[in-house]
Amino acid sequence: MSALDQVLSHVDDHLEESIDRLFDLVRIESISTDPAYKAECRKAAEWLERELKELQFDASVRPTPGHPMVVAHTPDHDSGPHVLFYGHYDVQPVDPLGLWNNPPFEPTVKVLPDGGKELTGRGTSDDKGQLLTFVEACRAWRAVTGKLPLNVSMILEGEEETGSPSLDDFLAAHKEELKADLALVCDTSMWDKDTPAITVRLRGMMKENLVIKAADRDLHSGGYGSAARNPLHVLSKIIADLRDDKGRVQIPGFYDGVGELPADIKKQWDELGFDGEEFLGEVGLSVPAGEEGYSVLEQLTSRPTCEVNGIWGGYNGEGSKTVIPAEANAKFTFRLVDQQEPVKIREAFRSFVEARLPTDCSVEYESVGGEFGPLVVDTDMPETQKVIKALSDEWNKEAALIGSGGSIPITTEFRSVLGMETLLVGFALEDDRIHSPNEKYDLKSFHKGIRSWVRIIAALGNS
Amino acid sequence: MSALDQVLSHVDDHLEESIDRLFDLVRIESISTDPAYKAECRKAAEWLERELKELQFDASVRPTPGHPMVVAHTPDHDSGPHVLFYGHYDVQPVDPLGLWNNPPFEPTVKVLPDGGKELTGRGTSDDKGQLLTFVEACRAWRAVTGKLPLNVSMILEGEEETGSPSLDDFLAAHKEELKADLALVCDTSMWDKDTPAITVRLRGMMKENLVIKAADRDLHSGGYGSAARNPLHVLSKIIADLRDDKGRVQIPGFYDGVGELPADIKKQWDELGFDGEEFLGEVGLSVPAGEEGYSVLEQLTSRPTCEVNGIWGGYNGEGSKTVIPAEANAKFTFRLVDQQEPVKIREAFRSFVEARLPTDCSVEYESVGGEFGPLVVDTDMPETQKVIKALSDEWNKEAALIGSGGSIPITTEFRSVLGMETLLVGFALEDDRIHSPNEKYDLKSFHKGIRSWVRIIAALGNS
Repeated sequence: MSALDQVLSHVDDHLEESIDRLFDLVRIESISTDPAYKAECRKAAEWLERELKELQFDASVRPTPGHPMVVAHTPDHDSGPHVLFYGHYDVQPVDPLGLWNNPPFEPTVKVLPDGGKELTGRGTSDDKGQLLTFVEACRAWRAVTGKLPLNVSMILEGEEETGSPSLDDFLAAHKEELKADLALVCDTSMWDKDTPAITVRLRGMMKENLVIKAADRDLHSGGYGSAARNPLHVLSKIIADLRDDKGRVQIPGFYDGVGELPADIKKQWDELGFDGEEFLGEVGLSVPAGEEGYSVLEQLTSRPTCEVNGIWGGYNGEGSKTVIPAEANAKFTFRLVDQQEPVKIREAFRSFVEARLPTDCSVEYESVGGEFGPLVVDTDMPETQKVIKALSDEWNKEAALIGSGGSIPITTEFRSVLGMETLLVGFALEDDRIHSPNEKYDLKSFHKGIRSWVRIIAALGNS
Repeated sequence: MSALDQVLSHVDDHLEESIDRLFDLVRIESISTDPAYKAECRKAAEWLERELKELQFDASVRPTPGHPMVVAHTPDHDSGPHVLFYGHYDVQPVDPLGLWNNPPFEPTVKVLPDGGKELTGRGTSDDKGQLLTFVEACRAWRAVTGKLPLNVSMILEGEEETGSPSLDDFLAAHKEELKADLALVCDTSMWDKDTPAITVRLRGMMKENLVIKAADRDLHSGGYGSAARNPLHVLSKIIADLRDDKGRVQIPGFYDGVGELPADIKKQWDELGFDGEEFLGEVGLSVPAGEEGYSVLEQLTSRPTCEVNGIWGGYNGEGSKTVIPAEANAKFTFRLVDQQEPVKIREAFRSFVEARLPTDCSVEYESVGGEFGPLVVDTDMPETQKVIKALSDEWNKEAALIGSGGSIPITTEFRSVLGMETLLVGFALEDDRIHSPNEKYDLKSFHKGIRSWVRIIAALGNS
C-alpha cells in the first residue's frame, strides 16, 4: 500500500474525530463583525494555534489592529516546494436566530432522507469546515508518515467577514516570512456536488456613490416645474445611457483590457451543462439581461458588470408631494474582469457622468473604498495540472476551471504583495446557506475535501 | 361726492378697525390639518358667521364631515347680478415655531425701514387677510349706503389646506342655493407689488405613483449582476425617455389639447418684464430646463409639465451594498393646461411606461387621487373687463391677466358643479411666506385690496 493510500485510509478511519474537532471550533462564537464577540475570536485563534502545534507546526497567534492572525509553518522546511495556505476562522452574524432549526453554535450531524449527512451550524461551511479540510489532511500525513511531503505555511485570518482590514499591512510587514511558491485558498465552491472545481477567474470591484445637485433648495413643482432643472431626470438619463439595448456598457474605454474567454475554457463551460434559464427561473426571471451574444454563465463570471445598487431623491413617503428636489443620489458597483483597472474605470465613469451634466448641475462623489482588480489565474503553471489531476482522482470526475461572479480580494493581494499565484480550491456547495440561517456543510464535502488535500499535498510535494 | 367715493373714504377712515378685526380672526388658531385644532376651526367659522350677521348677511355655520362651511347671502336679493364669493378661514401649521420672529397667532403691525407696514401672523395673507378684504368692502358699502349694490353670496371653507375633501359634495348638495352668475375667489397674488392681476390660467394636475418589479427577491449583484434584470435601470430608462433634449414631453398624445397662448395674452406677458434669469438665479439656477422656444414664464404657467417628485429603490444607507433590488419606485406629477384631460394623460403615461417594460418586469400603480383639469377663464365675458377696469382704477396701473403655475381646484368645481366661471383676484405678494414661518400681508395689500373690492362690487353691480 502506497504512503498516499495509507494516509487516505487514515482519513477514513478517523473521520469521527475530525468531525469532533470541527464541532469544537464551530462552538466558538467567533463573529468578527460584532465587537461583543472579540474574546471569542481570540479563542478561535488560540484553538487553532493549539491544534497546529499538536501537528508540530511552528504556530502562533499574531496581533493586528483588529482580530489576530494565526500563522504557522512546518518546522522542517527543506528546499522543496512550498505553499501558503489561507483560510479564515471568523464567521458571519447569526440573526435572525428564530429561523435556525438548531442553535447556530451547537453543531449537529443531520441525516437526510437519502442517507446523506450534513454538518449544521454557523461556519461549518464558511470557513471553519473548509479550513479544517486542509488542517486535517496535514494531520493525516503527519500521523501516518511522521512528516509532510511539502513545505507548508498557513495564514488563518479573523477578519474576512469584515472585509479584511488588517490583511494588507500584515502581508506587507511579513512578506519574507509568508512568501511561498503558491497560495492555496479553501473558501470557494465545487461546480456541483459531483464535480470538483478550481476557481480561476474572480471579478474585481469598483464602487462609486454620487449625488447630483441642481437648485440650492427643494422647489415646489407648481411654482418651478419644467423651468427648474430636476436632478432626478438628470440622474435617470445618466443611468439610462450606461447600457445600450443589447446590455453593452457605453462608458468609453470600459471594455479596454477585457478579453474573450479562451476557447478551451469556453468549451469546458459549455460542457458543464449550466442551465441559465433554470438559474434565472429560480428568482422569477426568464430572460438574461446582460450582453447579447454571451451565455448567462459568461455574463455572471467572465463579463464585466455595471449595476446601480440604489437610487433615491425627493419624496418617498405616503401619497404625493409636489417637490423638485435639490439632489438625486445613486450607488453603483462595477465588477471587473481580465485587465480592467479599477482606477481607470472610475475615471472613465466620472467622465461619462460629467459629460451628461447640464448647466446648473454639479456632481459629488463619495469614496467608499473596497475596490480591487480582477484575477485570472495563470492556469499554465505546472501546479494547476497537478491539482486538477489530484481532484479528478478523488472525485472520479474531471475538475472544472470555473469563474466566480463574486470577488475574493485576498487573491489579488497575494499576487501584488507577495508575488504569488493562487489556486482556489473549495468544497462548498451553492446550497450551503453561508451567511444565512441553517448553514451546513455536506459530510461528503468535509470527508472528500480532506482526502482531496491529502492528494494535492502529495502531488505538489512530489514535484 | 359719488357713492363710490364715499365708500372708499369710509374704508380709509376705518382702516384701523379693519385691522383689529383681521387680528381677532388671526388669533383664532384654525389649523385644519391637525385634529387638535378642531374647536379652533369651529370658532373661526362662528366668528365669521357673527361678523356677517352684523353686516345683515343671512349667515350660518353649516356642518360637513370635516370642518364646517360658512354660507352667507345678502338678504335683499333682487333680480340684478349675483356673485358667489369664496375664501377659506383655515390655515397651515406653524412649525418650525422657532423660526418665527413673533408668535404666529399674536399678529402685529411691523413698520419697515421704507415706512411701509406689514401685518404679521399665520393666515394674515393665506387666506384670512385676503378673505376679509372682501368682507370689509361689503361692510363699507353697508355702512355708507345701507345696502350692497350687488347680490352677494359667500362660501367660506375650513378645509382648503387639507385639499378640500368636503367641498365637492357640499357644492353638489347646495347647488341651487350657491349658484350665481359668477364666482369671485380671493386667494391669489398680484403680479408684483404695483400691478394688480386676475389669474386666468390655472394648471390642472395628474399624479401617478408606480413600482416596477423584476426578480421575486433582492439579489446579490456578484451572483446575478448583468444577467438579472435590474429594475433601477428600467425605471431610469423610462424617466430618461419622458423628455427629449429640448424639454419636450415624449408621451404620445401628451400635447393633445394644448394650445398656443393667445397673442394678446402673450404680448401682455412679454411686457410684464418678468426676468426668467433672475427668477432662476434666486434658487441657484441659470438656464431654463423646460421646452425650448418658450419663455420661463410660459414654461411656468401656460405649458404642461411632467416631473418626477421622488425615486427610490435598493440600498440608500452608509457605504455600499451589492444588491440588485426587486423593486424600483417613483412618484410623478403632471401639470396640465388648456384642454388636457387628466384621465387621458394617465392612460397615455401608463401606455408609455408599459411600452418600455422588458420581459420579466411588471408595473403596479398607486392611485393617490387629487387630479383635476386645467382652467382657462373665459376672459371674453363682460365681467372680466369690468373687474380689470376697477382694479386698474384703484392701482393706477393696467391689471394683468396672468397664469399660475400652481393649482386651485375650487375653480374647476365651480365650473363643473355650479356651471359658473370664476375670476381669481388676490392681493398677496410672492414674498408673503404663506405656509412658512413669518407669514405677512402688506398693509397696502389689505387696504387697497378692500378698496379694490369696493370698486369691483360697484362695477359688477352697475351692469
